[in-house]
Amino acid sequence: MNIAEIITVGDELLIGQTVDTNSAWMGMQLSMRGIRVNRITSISDRREEIIAALDEALGRVPLVLMTGGLGPTSDDITKETLAEYFGTRLVMNQEVLEEVTTRITRRNLEMNENNRRQAMVPEGCRVLANHAGTAPAMLFEKDGKLIVSMPGVPSEMKHIMQEHVLPMVAAMTGGSTIIHRNIMTFGTFEAKLAERLEGFEKELPAMVKLAYLPAHGIIKLRLTGIGDNAELVRRTEEEQVRKLYSIIPDVIYGEDEVTLEETIGKLLLDNNMTVSTAESCTGGRIASMITSVPGSSAWYRGSVVAYDNSIKTRVLGVDPAVISSYGAVSEETVRAMAEGMRSLASTDYAIAVTGIAGPTGGTPGKPVGTVWIAVASAAGIVAEKHRFADDRQINISRSATYALNLLRKQIISR
Amino acid sequence: MNIAEIITVGDELLIGQTVDTNSAWMGMQLSMRGIRVNRITSISDRREEIIAALDEALGRVPLVLMTGGLGPTSDDITKETLAEYFGTRLVMNQEVLEEVTTRITRRNLEMNENNRRQAMVPEGCRVLANHAGTAPAMLFEKDGKLIVSMPGVPSEMKHIMQEHVLPMVAAMTGGSTIIHRNIMTFGTFEAKLAERLEGFEKELPAMVKLAYLPAHGIIKLRLTGIGDNAELVRRTEEEQVRKLYSIIPDVIYGEDEVTLEETIGKLLLDNNMTVSTAESCTGGRIASMITSVPGSSAWYRGSVVAYDNSIKTRVLGVDPAVISSYGAVSEETVRAMAEGMRSLASTDYAIAVTGIAGPTGGTPGKPVGTVWIAVASAAGIVAEKHRFADDRQINISRSATYALNLLRKQIISR
Repeated sequence: MNIAEIITVGDELLIGQTVDTNSAWMGMQLSMRGIRVNRITSISDRREEIIAALDEALGRVPLVLMTGGLGPTSDDITKETLAEYFGTRLVMNQEVLEEVTTRITRRNLEMNENNRRQAMVPEGCRVLANHAGTAPAMLFEKDGKLIVSMPGVPSEMKHIMQEHVLPMVAAMTGGSTIIHRNIMTFGTFEAKLAERLEGFEKELPAMVKLAYLPAHGIIKLRLTGIGDNAELVRRTEEEQVRKLYSIIPDVIYGEDEVTLEETIGKLLLDNNMTVSTAESCTGGRIASMITSVPGSSAWYRGSVVAYDNSIKTRVLGVDPAVISSYGAVSEETVRAMAEGMRSLASTDYAIAVTGIAGPTGGTPGKPVGTVWIAVASAAGIVAEKHRFADDRQINISRSATYALNLLRKQIISR
Repeated sequence: MNIAEIITVGDELLIGQTVDTNSAWMGMQLSMRGIRVNRITSISDRREEIIAALDEALGRVPLVLMTGGLGPTSDDITKETLAEYFGTRLVMNQEVLEEVTTRITRRNLEMNENNRRQAMVPEGCRVLANHAGTAPAMLFEKDGKLIVSMPGVPSEMKHIMQEHVLPMVAAMTGGSTIIHRNIMTFGTFEAKLAERLEGFEKELPAMVKLAYLPAHGIIKLRLTGIGDNAELVRRTEEEQVRKLYSIIPDVIYGEDEVTLEETIGKLLLDNNMTVSTAESCTGGRIASMITSVPGSSAWYRGSVVAYDNSIKTRVLGVDPAVISSYGAVSEETVRAMAEGMRSLASTDYAIAVTGIAGPTGGTPGKPVGTVWIAVASAAGIVAEKHRFADDRQINISRSATYALNLLRKQIISR
């Protein structure tokens, strides 16, 4: 019973009105408990589709988790279809009826035919009580295989998974363990990292697998350990993590899902230091990333978004002659911005960014994607020139993360 | 060719490390062009799985769009598997090699074996150039059916869809038409809006459907018209859109996917006016939203992120006595911030926001979620108090959108 499939039902998934976040959540919960998800299938609210997808999944795996199509409206047909599939009929379930009645009357509403319909379940299924909503979940057994049907509302699905399904699968599995470790890297790119890790990959023990998960310049290295002996898996994986630290110490900035801004916050807090930012092409993105971290007011003072040159000169105190001689996107300007911001905000560090995000504003000498980044501190100013992409959004996001990483490097190397 | 399936490849999808947002985006784009998505299947990076899923999908539909598994690392095996599936071999593609080489060398990096591997494509496929990354997309034809394989990185997938795939499918379809119209509303909530639109919904013609899509305080009303007579669908839907404008003129701010910041940009440009922002609890989010709009430098001057009170007083010129008498989160402070920013940046309008985003910092009198918003202009200052949520991310995002909407109302009512 350590392999499963997920079927999500609903037209809204296929026309892109709703992103299927249920599957990812279920996949993570299952894999953390040693259940491998073989396939995720999203289908429409149509009888034949539901029957076909269920039939196929049960042909491959012994456990199928379904969400969606259990609502009170007429487009929700999963329950009727399951009754048909399992050769049974819908009957009124008194416990569910009471639960639904309580929920409805508590909201000062009157029970109607649709609400009553929610208390009908296929005869012979096991009802899994839904204390987060009005649609009950159902467990079916067929030829030793298990099928669970849950509502598609994420909060209700999660409730039913945690209350009923996960304890059940945990009891059934035993045996094999899957452990994930995530090593967060920045400042390199996938092909380069793969080259540096070629030997590491070749020597990986059979029970550990490596995946590269790049996003916005950050590459997450995911080690997945699988085996029957949980302790052995944990130890073997830990050895591989340590090996990674010895091979690519320069690009690892943290573990698990930690972000660059969280890492920086921790470093600054530990050293009782502060930072401020002066942003041109990133337009407040760095400030926004930093202030998304709860408690960032302890180490972050603020930002000047100097989108217009007049703000660079009047607020940050950049000499207008510097901008007119070297241009707004230049080493001289970014240095002056960082210095000006640091003194304006009286912080230990100041980040400055100026560049051409695009789509317009590029020149042959300074094409779209040209970005200068600087970090000022008591130790002086370091500045870096980058050439990112032709795409505005990519340029903004890369500039922000590279700037945060430059700060991180300055803090740890001080 | 008006029915398709989507296959997303990657272990990270099955273990829930990555939410499959690609499928929803592709589903929406296809359905807007009259292509019905029959099924979405997510599978792991394993040869047999890829072959099985592709075989099954081609047994059901004439068009299969795949994403994922095209990276340069060894866990990416989609390309090799496709070559095998179509009975061909990988050959070096000179154009792709040049594109990859240009991208790599522009970043002052050296080409390595993994980069070169990215330029290998199955012989006989049509390469769809990827100007957003190094992995090329590929188009295969088999028994009159089409298969497209794209990178899984969302920005690259979107680029390839828009550049190559969507124009191609649009040319191929014909037949029944699906037309979506999106009416963007702000400043109300779903149950309230549904109440106001009860009569409208009852009178909707059979060929038009209405859906409510709420996100971050914005509720998108999507009208979907379906029928064989494209002109009739278009006309019927247009009538319904006009009806909506007559029922809820106060909350509609735009159409299609237009954002509040884009709407504001257009209004300011049309009036040759400018804006600046002074942000405390939103921490640069408003600036970041505004500067995500291409060309915003024409109407946006910049922001002061006054996260620390010292920035409010020293940079924005807020009287320290105002903060100590009324608090940093008060009508008096937000007014002073707006006024100070407007004069600092010399803009026609200035937005100011100050509040308690949480999780800490709340008091009985000013609980987490308390936010003051102001807009200053030549006509004076308007200020609003809001009480949003207990959640930091929701508070930041709601504060930002309500502030933008307050500005929009000031511009249109001037």
